[in-house]
Amino acid sequence: MQELIATVGEGKVVTNPATIDNYRRDRANDPDAGTPIAVVRATSSEDVQAAIRFAASHAIPVVARGAGSGLSGGSSAVDGGIILSLENMRDIIIDPLTRTAVVQPGALNAEVKAAAAEHGLWYPPDPSSFEFCSIGGNVATNAGGLCCVKYGVTADYVLGMKVVLADGRQVQLGGTQVKDVAGLNLTQLFIGSEGTLGVITEATLRLVPAQRPPTTLVATFSSLDDATDAILAVTSTMRPSMLEFMDNYTINAVEDLTRMGLEREAAAMLIVQSDEPAELAAQEIEQIQALCHRYDATDVFHTSDAEEAEAIIVARRMAIPAVEQNGTLLLEDVGVPLPQLGELVRGIDEISQLRDVPIAVIAHAGDGNTHPLLVVDPTDAEQQQRAQRAYGDVMDLAVQLGGTITGEHGVGRLKQPWLVNSIGEDALELNHRIKRALDPQNILNPGAVFAPTDFVANE
Amino acid sequence: MQELIATVGEGKVVTNPATIDNYRRDRANDPDAGTPIAVVRATSSEDVQAAIRFAASHAIPVVARGAGSGLSGGSSAVDGGIILSLENMRDIIIDPLTRTAVVQPGALNAEVKAAAAEHGLWYPPDPSSFEFCSIGGNVATNAGGLCCVKYGVTADYVLGMKVVLADGRQVQLGGTQVKDVAGLNLTQLFIGSEGTLGVITEATLRLVPAQRPPTTLVATFSSLDDATDAILAVTSTMRPSMLEFMDNYTINAVEDLTRMGLEREAAAMLIVQSDEPAELAAQEIEQIQALCHRYDATDVFHTSDAEEAEAIIVARRMAIPAVEQNGTLLLEDVGVPLPQLGELVRGIDEISQLRDVPIAVIAHAGDGNTHPLLVVDPTDAEQQQRAQRAYGDVMDLAVQLGGTITGEHGVGRLKQPWLVNSIGEDALELNHRIKRALDPQNILNPGAVFAPTDFVANE
Repeated sequence: MQELIATVGEGKVVTNPATIDNYRRDRANDPDAGTPIAVVRATSSEDVQAAIRFAASHAIPVVARGAGSGLSGGSSAVDGGIILSLENMRDIIIDPLTRTAVVQPGALNAEVKAAAAEHGLWYPPDPSSFEFCSIGGNVATNAGGLCCVKYGVTADYVLGMKVVLADGRQVQLGGTQVKDVAGLNLTQLFIGSEGTLGVITEATLRLVPAQRPPTTLVATFSSLDDATDAILAVTSTMRPSMLEFMDNYTINAVEDLTRMGLEREAAAMLIVQSDEPAELAAQEIEQIQALCHRYDATDVFHTSDAEEAEAIIVARRMAIPAVEQNGTLLLEDVGVPLPQLGELVRGIDEISQLRDVPIAVIAHAGDGNTHPLLVVDPTDAEQQQRAQRAYGDVMDLAVQLGGTITGEHGVGRLKQPWLVNSIGEDALELNHRIKRALDPQNILNPGAVFAPTDFVANE
Repeated sequence: MQELIATVGEGKVVTNPATIDNYRRDRANDPDAGTPIAVVRATSSEDVQAAIRFAASHAIPVVARGAGSGLSGGSSAVDGGIILSLENMRDIIIDPLTRTAVVQPGALNAEVKAAAAEHGLWYPPDPSSFEFCSIGGNVATNAGGLCCVKYGVTADYVLGMKVVLADGRQVQLGGTQVKDVAGLNLTQLFIGSEGTLGVITEATLRLVPAQRPPTTLVATFSSLDDATDAILAVTSTMRPSMLEFMDNYTINAVEDLTRMGLEREAAAMLIVQSDEPAELAAQEIEQIQALCHRYDATDVFHTSDAEEAEAIIVARRMAIPAVEQNGTLLLEDVGVPLPQLGELVRGIDEISQLRDVPIAVIAHAGDGNTHPLLVVDPTDAEQQQRAQRAYGDVMDLAVQLGGTITGEHGVGRLKQPWLVNSIGEDALELNHRIKRALDPQNILNPGAVFAPTDFVANE
């Protein structure tokens, strides 16, 4: 420990148990999170390198952590390991000439958006947590969000990065150009690798011109099938810049909290935006409205007023905290091809009844990515067990429907047991080969994405 | 050989030397291409698996090949190896509901575009060779094109793939969804891997709504600096859907061939398109015109007439064959950050004078990707040697300017010696580790991207 303190500096190494405790879990509240021996609060890539070199020489696990907003336990602490916090590395440099941002991992997504906006530019990826999640975590999980249906995910905006490898070396991958095919695409390999291959110390992000003010449409439906049919009709014929879904449980939870006048009887509510130029947006919204009516929407409303629209979006963003009022949440993040969305939503309802666990469903419906929220009474141990089974059932269902166990939150520790079913044994074995090639000691975020035991036999 | 014929079927194995000779080289005309023992013309992924299993069991090199339109020698034959031709695997299935295409590797880019267009959809990536290059090669090189400045590269449109590994197993990677973060992003790792990690037998491609008819602007400049300044002014303030550059040498070569009335005295010509909705396109083109005038354009002209525009684009597409009339070409594919484009173009001119080799420059200027074309007299051995030096000089210059040795053609065999300078030793070593992990025998396209000797010591 003295060795570590000597290298990175006393002020940056936390060994006080009370402070350490704040760094043991992300927002997934992993009950199995371990206790690290120290937290290193890096202020430079040299600190990151020093911490990883120390960890490598002692074969100690290193779990990198940004803002701690992860939802899959990807940054749960590991017993005897180091938490490497990047929260204090948050420089942002915007280059308007090349429309790029060079960003340290601790910078918040919202800070990058704001810095870009000062130059009339836009960093599109918008996880619901954008106000308090950091870019390092966004890149490490390939975070999604609401605008992805039209604008893609984090990976689509990362041109290059600096990453510290398992032996402490820092390498530069990619650059500032859209086109660069010199060697394997390692930039993309590290995106979404959840800290298992290296620690990202800088990302070069692509920016685009500011988004046009959108027009927002809200539609309610008295049947789930109508709602999912309308979603498919919209996504297969138009290009909304947002297409969000809330089910009856969620609508009521949000209404309980906000009293904003949502239709409590509705089976589902869709929030759709078009950010095309005014005339085209009007056409697009009109067509979407017609499709909603064709699928028997009970109420359709649209607005170009920014404040009115923002109130609606805030309702959507409040969905998780609103549902959380009713119990402890187990968050899912399953995705399916859009023609299977109806079957997924109906199947989740069946699982909820079978396991006797309320499941609220919110979804980035336009890209098939859903967030079923299992609502568990923290004092009911038996229900917790049923919820664990339901949690697996939902993932199994998504895989059966040709989908994925995680669209944007990452596998982390909570979904790791289901990874093999999601991608198959051969693809998992390929993952293992790459993990072994890049982190032969398995010190980088062990237990996340891959089972700790996956690497024992081969060492 | 009998074993191979027995497995994949006699009709699919070519051993006739005259026919084999047609498969030894791609469009790079690699003088060092070897002579394979056979060409396997696969008609299914089972054929691909059988060929690779055969190769693996005998430790024989396998070079996959699509339409043979590669420009870096990525599919040059290897002595004693097998050429695995995918030209007969060309199924295309469009799913308009999910706006995806499931495509076999031999399907031509133009065929995918046409199949998508039947459903009002668009597959954007548009290498200049789109009429005769195949999707497998596009994915294997992460091919670019003209529209990338606004619409991104091949990688941005690949959601999933089937790939046959070095041991003959076929794995499915990714799926049909934009959001999927289950495990490492192996789909993206295989994109641009130039056949060194596996052979792609199917790709799932994302399609988007049909492009609006563009407005096209042509501007000529009497100085290179003015032209590159105008490019930077346009790309840093607008979002053209195309921004192409031709230098004086190229303009004259095209004019020699077409007699279409290009301005022979111009130092450079820009071709710019906007595909925004009519009113916005008119505004955008007007602004671009104003910027061109600000940088002293000698002539600016624009049209919304499709035929007139097509004639201009054809001129751009004919640039390489036109320059080729003047000698044998050595094609470069260097890219730089846009603020360095002027320095690159001036530096290339200096290299041309220093080495006494004509170098024509065409560029996808909007994304900083240039194609300097070294024009060599095939009967002048001394000039050929000077051209080889100039070829390296241009890549060295791009790297010095913070750019890449290859933006979209791939490293192949021709640029392999320069890869280490482009990405650095540490990144190259990471590449090697992944290559070894996935192809421990180094049978997949040995000598492409990486030096054959890179893997000898470790076996």
